[in-house]
Amino acid sequence: MSRFFAEENSVDAVNARIGPDADARLSAVMTSLVKHLHAFIKDVHLTQDEWSAAIDFLTRTGQICSAERQEFILLSDTLGVSMLVDAINHRRPAQATENTVLGPFHVAGAPARDMGARISFDGKGEPCLFEGRVVDAHGRAVEGARIDVWSDNAEGFYDVQQPDIQPKWNNRGVFTTGKDGAYRFVGIKPVSYPIPHDGPVGKMLAALGRHPYRPAHMHFIVTANGFQAVVTHTFVGDDPYIGSDAVFGVKETLVAPFQRTDCGETLWRSPFDFVMTPLEG
Amino acid sequence: MSRFFAEENSVDAVNARIGPDADARLSAVMTSLVKHLHAFIKDVHLTQDEWSAAIDFLTRTGQICSAERQEFILLSDTLGVSMLVDAINHRRPAQATENTVLGPFHVAGAPARDMGARISFDGKGEPCLFEGRVVDAHGRAVEGARIDVWSDNAEGFYDVQQPDIQPKWNNRGVFTTGKDGAYRFVGIKPVSYPIPHDGPVGKMLAALGRHPYRPAHMHFIVTANGFQAVVTHTFVGDDPYIGSDAVFGVKETLVAPFQRTDCGETLWRSPFDFVMTPLEG
Repeated sequence: MSRFFAEENSVDAVNARIGPDADARLSAVMTSLVKHLHAFIKDVHLTQDEWSAAIDFLTRTGQICSAERQEFILLSDTLGVSMLVDAINHRRPAQATENTVLGPFHVAGAPARDMGARISFDGKGEPCLFEGRVVDAHGRAVEGARIDVWSDNAEGFYDVQQPDIQPKWNNRGVFTTGKDGAYRFVGIKPVSYPIPHDGPVGKMLAALGRHPYRPAHMHFIVTANGFQAVVTHTFVGDDPYIGSDAVFGVKETLVAPFQRTDCGETLWRSPFDFVMTPLEG
Repeated sequence: MSRFFAEENSVDAVNARIGPDADARLSAVMTSLVKHLHAFIKDVHLTQDEWSAAIDFLTRTGQICSAERQEFILLSDTLGVSMLVDAINHRRPAQATENTVLGPFHVAGAPARDMGARISFDGKGEPCLFEGRVVDAHGRAVEGARIDVWSDNAEGFYDVQQPDIQPKWNNRGVFTTGKDGAYRFVGIKPVSYPIPHDGPVGKMLAALGRHPYRPAHMHFIVTANGFQAVVTHTFVGDDPYIGSDAVFGVKETLVAPFQRTDCGETLWRSPFDFVMTPLEG
């Protein structure tokens, strides 16, 4: 092998430069990255113009990022990378509740509410009762589980996307289970909405003939001592985008019932149980 | 196959979304990108923390870019991507002069100089006569070839990195060959220098135990009617970094002689002929 870089030895030429004192894991990750990146370029015979377009795309993606916007996470989401990373790090037994993407709209510090409370305060949307139990793999109630929930409003926006609109913490809340492991709260039946698509990622989706919509969903983070955190959504099954979520977040097991009710103002009921996985195994 | 994303079908789930009206080439490139990107993540079993670190790295790389700095090109250069893209797009017959990276310091509009002229005006460094011929594959002189040259100064900086220092266009110039295809000009023997390494890419190199230096080189762009543009350097063979260029730009055929001379102020002579490749073939 020549000591210099050439098309034939490109991967080895780059990876041979890693020093003996580099962290072993970093070295393994970068070695694999270079191998797959070069294979991609060779497979498609990337042209100079396409390379320039890629440099420009990545630069614009970085430059549009701000405290309020993370376009690289959006890129990861829309290429299935976020879901893939979640999947390989959260392989769970059948029956256990599966994870999905966290998404960019979670806010720490939402107010604790009493069980059964309303979280939707703007008077818009179709009220929906969310209820169920937090249980272990044997169906036993998990007491003291913390359930952090959030959804969009009837117009498809999260409160943080409309910071000037009162009340604060609309469609958010935190609940803690009692001895029976049960939870219940009244939100709205969520609606589908587009991810931010006025930036480089939106342009990429348009060029690929892909829409930017996510099917309607309620977000949950369920945590309890001794169990893996469940970061997930429940989805509205008859949403037009259920089969084409722009960020690939839908799983069969996360499609929840949304049933019409006849109990006063609450038009819908969505029952869903969370089955927790022990931390070890 | 489920209609939803899962670890097992992740590549197909993403690529199946590409619409029928998407550009065929874009579709092929993105399909391959997703395939290789997911394979990388699966091969190394990327963790959530590593994913977060990657998002953060890409974001910082984009945010440090400016009119004067292109950190994503630096990333491409240091991972061997720039050289690979150049290599697969410029496969040339043996004997033909090879390309290497353009680098970020070329400036269009350098002044035309008379053949034999000096391009180094700051009185620093060791004067060196660069000379040779521009020829076709049969050794025939190429008349009217345009030779755009630039190098760093004796401190390792290009003039554009020190915009406040006069004179302008130090160590740059453009020459045009006559009937004999010959060129000659007096610059300095270039010196090795580090690529900008105070940003994310510099941190990456340090973490990998890699130095940021490029071996000393003179830049050339040689263009002539009917021939492929030659974008290349000639390298100083005894440079300590000749075998470890941070951007992988060195090729065996581009290592040029640098010979001591005894002709007055000019201490060195570097002869090098450019063998042009016809545009078609």
